[in-house]
Amino acid sequence: KAGKLARRLHAADLADLLERLSYEQRAILLEVLREGFDPEVLPYLDENVRDDVIEILGPEAVGRAIAELDSDDAIAIIEDLEDAEKQAILEAVEPTGRALLEEGLTFPEYSAGRLMQRELVAVPSHWTVGQTIDFMRTNPNLPDDFYEIFVVDPRFRPIGLVSLGKLLHNKRPIRLRDIMSGDFVRLQAETPQEEVAHLFRQYGLVSAPVVNDSGRLLGRVTVDDVVDIVDEEAEEDILRLGGVSESDLQSNVLETTKQRFLWLLINLGTAIMASGVIAIFEATIAQVVALAVLMPIVASMGGNAGTQTVTVVVRALAMRDLSTSNALRVIWKEALVGLLNGVLFAVLIGAIAAFWFEPLIGAVIAAAMVINMLVAGLSGALIPIGLERLKIDPAVASSVFLTTVTDVIGFFAFLGLAAAFVL
Amino acid sequence: KAGKLARRLHAADLADLLERLSYEQRAILLEVLREGFDPEVLPYLDENVRDDVIEILGPEAVGRAIAELDSDDAIAIIEDLEDAEKQAILEAVEPTGRALLEEGLTFPEYSAGRLMQRELVAVPSHWTVGQTIDFMRTNPNLPDDFYEIFVVDPRFRPIGLVSLGKLLHNKRPIRLRDIMSGDFVRLQAETPQEEVAHLFRQYGLVSAPVVNDSGRLLGRVTVDDVVDIVDEEAEEDILRLGGVSESDLQSNVLETTKQRFLWLLINLGTAIMASGVIAIFEATIAQVVALAVLMPIVASMGGNAGTQTVTVVVRALAMRDLSTSNALRVIWKEALVGLLNGVLFAVLIGAIAAFWFEPLIGAVIAAAMVINMLVAGLSGALIPIGLERLKIDPAVASSVFLTTVTDVIGFFAFLGLAAAFVL
Ligand SMILES: [Mg+2]
Ligand SMILES: [Mg+2]
Ligand SMILES: [Mg+2]
Ligand SMILES: [Mg+2]
Ligand SMILES: [Mg+2]
Ligand SMILES: [Mg+2]
Ligand SMILES: [Mg+2]
Ligand SMILES: [Mg+2]
Ligand SMILES: [Mg+2]
Ligand SMILES: [Mg+2]
Ligand SMILES: [Mg+2]
Ligand SMILES: [Mg+2]
Ligand SMILES: [Mg+2]
Repeated sequence: KAGKLARRLHAADLADLLERLSYEQRAILLEVLREGFDPEVLPYLDENVRDDVIEILGPEAVGRAIAELDSDDAIAIIEDLEDAEKQAILEAVEPTGRALLEEGLTFPEYSAGRLMQRELVAVPSHWTVGQTIDFMRTNPNLPDDFYEIFVVDPRFRPIGLVSLGKLLHNKRPIRLRDIMSGDFVRLQAETPQEEVAHLFRQYGLVSAPVVNDSGRLLGRVTVDDVVDIVDEEAEEDILRLGGVSESDLQSNVLETTKQRFLWLLINLGTAIMASGVIAIFEATIAQVVALAVLMPIVASMGGNAGTQTVTVVVRALAMRDLSTSNALRVIWKEALVGLLNGVLFAVLIGAIAAFWFEPLIGAVIAAAMVINMLVAGLSGALIPIGLERLKIDPAVASSVFLTTVTDVIGFFAFLGLAAAFVL
Repeated sequence: KAGKLARRLHAADLADLLERLSYEQRAILLEVLREGFDPEVLPYLDENVRDDVIEILGPEAVGRAIAELDSDDAIAIIEDLEDAEKQAILEAVEPTGRALLEEGLTFPEYSAGRLMQRELVAVPSHWTVGQTIDFMRTNPNLPDDFYEIFVVDPRFRPIGLVSLGKLLHNKRPIRLRDIMSGDFVRLQAETPQEEVAHLFRQYGLVSAPVVNDSGRLLGRVTVDDVVDIVDEEAEEDILRLGGVSESDLQSNVLETTKQRFLWLLINLGTAIMASGVIAIFEATIAQVVALAVLMPIVASMGGNAGTQTVTVVVRALAMRDLSTSNALRVIWKEALVGLLNGVLFAVLIGAIAAFWFEPLIGAVIAAAMVINMLVAGLSGALIPIGLERLKIDPAVASSVFLTTVTDVIGFFAFLGLAAAFVL
C-alpha cells in the first residue's frame, strides 16, 4: 500500500519522504519501489541519505537510473560517491554516456563545467527560422527542457542566442543571424559556481553557454539549477557564520560532534585569551567584586554590535555590493554607528551601574562601553573586508577574530580603567 | 564622456555604478543620461538609492520609464514609494497599464499576486500546435521572455501547461489538449513569496500560473524572479540571525544606528540578567578570584555550541527539511552532540584550570561545562522549533533566548558548584 502511495508522489516529495525515514524503513520502502524506481528521485536526495539509497539499490540499478537522468543531474550524483562505487556505477552506463560523464568529472568541483548540462540545441547561423523549427520537430534527441537555442560557428563556438519566444515570433524565411542576440554571457568551464550564480542574478539570465579554452561550446547552465546554487551559497554563508562547516542535519551524532569540535576548540582558545586579560586584574577584582559582576556586559555588547556589522559586511561582500570603491565609506560609517550606539548604551549602563554600585563604577563602565562599541564597529567592518582581500572566506573566520577583539578590548578597557580610577 | 561610457553598460551594471556614487555624483550622471534613460536600470537599484534616483528624475520621467517595464518590475518599484509619489507616477502611466498596476497593488506585499507578471500567452485547449505558432508569430503584444504557454478553459482558468520546447517538438495538426501537462502548480494570488520560492525549488519549476479565488488566470511567476526571492529570503535569515532587521548598507549613519539599537537594547537586558546571576555569588568570588577569571569560558562555550545548533535548525526550518516528523529526532541528537562535546571540552578545560589554579576548580569547571553544553544543544534545538510552532520567526528571536539560557545556566552552574564545593 505504501508503495502505491509513494509511486503517486512527485520525485521531490518521495525524496523528502525517504529523508525522514530510518535506514530500515528506507530499505523496506525501496524494495517495494525497486521495480520502476523513478530515477528523478536521486538528484533531490540529501547526500547522506543518497549514500544509503545507492547502497540499498546496488550499482546496476543505480547505473540504469543514472543513464536516464540529464547529464548535469547524473554528474551531481556520481561526483559525491567513493571511487569504487563510482567505477561500478559508471560501468553500468552505456559507453557514450559514460565518456561524457567522465569528461564532466575532469572539471573542478563547484565549477560551471561540473554544473552544465550537455543536452542542448545548437544550430548554424545561416539556418532560417523555418529550418530550425523543422529540425526540432523531427529530432528525437531534443532535451526535455530548453528555452534558448545556441547559434554556433563552424568550429562550434557560440556566437549568438535565440530564445524560443523570439524564434516563434519571426517568419519562417528569416535567418537566425538576423534575430540572434550576440551580446550574451559565456561561462568558462572553470568558472566557480559562486561566480555563475552572480552572473545569472546580475543579468537576469535564463541560460548560459559553457565553453572550453578554445571557445568551443560544451554545455549550458540553466536558471532552474542556479536557484539551487543560490541556496547552496547562502546556506554555506549562514552555516559558516554560525560556526558550522556544512549542513549536518542528516549526519549521525558522532559525525556531527566531530564536525563541530574544531570550531569550538578555536573558540576555547579565544575564551582562554580573554581569561588571561581578566587574570591581569585579579588584584583589582579581589578588592572591588562589583567589577566581576559587570565585566561580561561590556564584552557581550561589543560582541553583539560587532556581529551586526560583520553580518551586514559579509552579506554585502557575498552579493558583490561591497568592493574597493565603497569599502572605506562602509568602514567609516560602521565606526560612526558603533560610536553613536556606544554613547547611547554608555549613558544607559552608566546610570544603571551608578545606582547599583557607585557613580565612579558607572563612569568607568560608560567609558569602556564607548571604547568597545567603537572598536566593535570598526573591526566588524575591517575584519571581513581584510579577510576577503587575503582570499580567506570572511563567513568562516570573521566571528572568531571579532570576538577575540571585543572580548580582549572589552575586559581590558573596563578592568584597566577601573584599576586606574576606582582604586 | 562618462555619459557615453555609462550608456554602453548593461542596466544592472549601471545600477551598481549609481549605487556606488554619492548623491551629488548621481545627480550629475543622471542629468547626462536623462535623454534615453534605460528604464531597465530602475528594478536593479537598491531601494534607498532608487528613492534618490526617482527624486532626481522626477515623476513624469519615472512614469514614462515605468510604463515601458514588465508589469512585475513596475509594481516592485511603485510599491516602495510614498503615497504622494505613487499617485504622481501612476498618473503618468496610460489608463490600461495604470489599472493593472493598481490591481496588482491590492495584493499583499511579498505575495504571488505582487510578484506576478501580467504579460503571458494563454490559449484554448482545442487549438492546434500550428494555430498556436501562427498566433504567436502574428501577435505584436507577445511578452519579451516566456518559456511556457498556458492552456485555459472558457472561463480563463488554467488547465494545462505546454513548454515551448514541447510545442516545437510536435506536428502542426496536433491539439494542445493532447500534449499539455495537466499536473502543474497553481499559485493563489495570496501565496507568500517564501512559499512560492519553496514550490519552485521543490518541483524545479520554470514558471507557474497565478490564479484568483475563482481560479481565473491573473499572471505568472517566472524562475528568473524566483532567484531574487531565494536571495531575499536567505538574506533575511542571515541578517536576522546576526541581529540586523534589514540590509542597511545603503542607509545613512543615523538610520543604521536606530535600526540596530533595539536589538542591542534587548541584549543589554540579557547581559544584565547574567550579571544578576553573578551578583548572587559576589561573596564566593571575593574569596576565590580565580572564579572571575574562568567564569566567562563556560558561558561563552555554551553560547557558541548553542549557536551552532540554532544555525543548523533555523536553516533546516527555512528549507522545510525539519518538521513534526523529525523534530524529536533532531532535538535528541543535538542534546547528545552537546553532551559529547561537553565531555570533551570538560576534560580539556578541567585540566587547564587544574594546572592554572587548583584541581578542585578544574573539577568544578569541568562539571559546569558538561551541564552548559548539554543545555546549549538541547535549547539550541528546542528554542527555534518552539518559536516556529508559535509562528514567531526563529531567525529573529532564537539567539537572544539562547544566550540568555547559556549565560544564566553557565554562570549559575559554575559559580553555584564552586560555592558548594570549593569554599
Ligand atoms: Mg527535499
Ligand atoms: Mg555535489
Ligand atoms: Mg528579471
Ligand atoms: Mg538541470
Ligand atoms: Mg561564499
Ligand atoms: Mg562557495
Ligand atoms: Mg546590483
Ligand atoms: Mg527591497
Ligand atoms: Mg519591494
Ligand atoms: Mg532541475
Ligand atoms: Mg520578471
Ligand atoms: Mg524566513
Ligand atoms: Mg520572509
